[in-house]
Amino acid sequence: MSFLYKANPVRGAEWARHFAALAPDVPFHVWPDQPDPASVRHLATWVPPDDIAGTFPNLELVFSVGAGVDQFDFTKVPAHVPLVRMLEPHIAESMVEYVSLAVLALHRDLPRFLDQQRREVWKEIQITAAARRRVGVMGLGQLGQGVLERLKVFGFPLAGWNRSPRRIAGVDCYTGAEGLAAFLARTDILVCLLPLTPETRGILNASLFAALPAGAMLVNVGRGGHLVQDDLLAALDGGQIAAAMLDVAEPEPLPAGHPFWRHEKIILTPHIASMTHPETAVRFVLDTIARHRRGEPLPGLVDRARGY
Amino acid sequence: MSFLYKANPVRGAEWARHFAALAPDVPFHVWPDQPDPASVRHLATWVPPDDIAGTFPNLELVFSVGAGVDQFDFTKVPAHVPLVRMLEPHIAESMVEYVSLAVLALHRDLPRFLDQQRREVWKEIQITAAARRRVGVMGLGQLGQGVLERLKVFGFPLAGWNRSPRRIAGVDCYTGAEGLAAFLARTDILVCLLPLTPETRGILNASLFAALPAGAMLVNVGRGGHLVQDDLLAALDGGQIAAAMLDVAEPEPLPAGHPFWRHEKIILTPHIASMTHPETAVRFVLDTIARHRRGEPLPGLVDRARGY
Repeated sequence: MSFLYKANPVRGAEWARHFAALAPDVPFHVWPDQPDPASVRHLATWVPPDDIAGTFPNLELVFSVGAGVDQFDFTKVPAHVPLVRMLEPHIAESMVEYVSLAVLALHRDLPRFLDQQRREVWKEIQITAAARRRVGVMGLGQLGQGVLERLKVFGFPLAGWNRSPRRIAGVDCYTGAEGLAAFLARTDILVCLLPLTPETRGILNASLFAALPAGAMLVNVGRGGHLVQDDLLAALDGGQIAAAMLDVAEPEPLPAGHPFWRHEKIILTPHIASMTHPETAVRFVLDTIARHRRGEPLPGLVDRARGY
Repeated sequence: MSFLYKANPVRGAEWARHFAALAPDVPFHVWPDQPDPASVRHLATWVPPDDIAGTFPNLELVFSVGAGVDQFDFTKVPAHVPLVRMLEPHIAESMVEYVSLAVLALHRDLPRFLDQQRREVWKEIQITAAARRRVGVMGLGQLGQGVLERLKVFGFPLAGWNRSPRRIAGVDCYTGAEGLAAFLARTDILVCLLPLTPETRGILNASLFAALPAGAMLVNVGRGGHLVQDDLLAALDGGQIAAAMLDVAEPEPLPAGHPFWRHEKIILTPHIASMTHPETAVRFVLDTIARHRRGEPLPGLVDRARGY
């Protein structure tokens, strides 16, 4: 039995090193290097290879190397094989760092200062107290909760919105379609941490922006597909949205010449908010395999009907 | 008896409003509007007017409207009149926010991503874990301690350096000239929060940069005079310093055409890290006046020999 890794080969080499140290008895292979297909019990991948079922008849578990699985064509993974998304702690910690950075950058008007720097203008902007800057997070899973916990120390009034009800100390939680308008109306900095599903695709659109207070700001660390790009450009140009920090785009990489690159109200980073850390990822994978053997519940198990 | 304010007139109008609410019996004047000079007991100012002693014979207290007093010519304030620097809580809170933003921005390679955005390049950079990014703060007064307390939640290994010894839980504290080299050798992101005095002028220079690990990064929220600008440019060009975020310059405003404006490794903001908040400033001033009348010690009292 063997483990097959099919994603970024540089990180694959690091996975191999950690497998050698933590599970030296498991043959570990980085795609396109392949063992006997019948020996492959476990696959970690970003985009699954075609015909998984036919190629690897003895597959027991499939791992997404990222926290999201919207890039997966679920129909390619046999129904009896559990699909697990990455829940290792560094994904959460790097996301918490990035969102803290993004919220502070927007709160303290960094896009305007960067624009002034380009124009060689030295001009102060009055500070808004954190207590008057309401932050709202869409998506209250492990990442959203981690982000809110960290943002508490800065004194922002906090709210969260989620498909199903959540209770988080110190956070006003709103639920579902009926809670969305009230959540948006009280949110000055909106953070999107939703999974990308057919229901959430395009949720960051003109009507959502119109439901925010004028001059609100946006952080998108979900997926590029959450955002209707032309609607954001119109909202930025009209002033309804004052600035945005985006870590995701559609497509990725964003092509040269796209209007986001040179927009003075947009800070754009190349999908680096959160990264899977090889060592803790390997520990998570090995722990999940052991749980699966013991017949225990699997953290990160994807509900394919729900989409995440 | 009256109170005279001589600084930014826009904020002066806000001070007037808060004085009217909190101390309606005190005549409050915003320079150049002036009461009978003999009636002036208290003066709040950024740069003191000439001949304070001769103009205001009954002066009892002078306040700096900022946290620093390096802009003051101490010889202009009579020796018997206490000089007090601003210690209101919003100065600390806005500074803590800004330094958190700056440290996270450097930690997460924002200057490189901004440069990539300008060049329309989508390219990830591996994340360094916070546990491997050592942050060091120079200057362990109220602001430096507040900053370190906030940075703890992100998991950075923390150290501080101060002229006189300090003990802060969870922070390795170094003292004086003899502690400087060891402090610098373990510091990947250096934050300067020192007061500007003859001893600290030009402290951020080539020899200090050389004592940091190669590729270290710099946050200057002290004063422009702490930094030897040409030494920073050389260290950035040579790679000894990887990036810098600067909120202060010399002179301010920094003139157009200065090489800092367009340097791709520098993020420059116009001295906005920390601002005095009129309402809490007025409360601090009124509290200090009351303490002075009762003969109590004055928080923020400047030691003119020490320089802060």
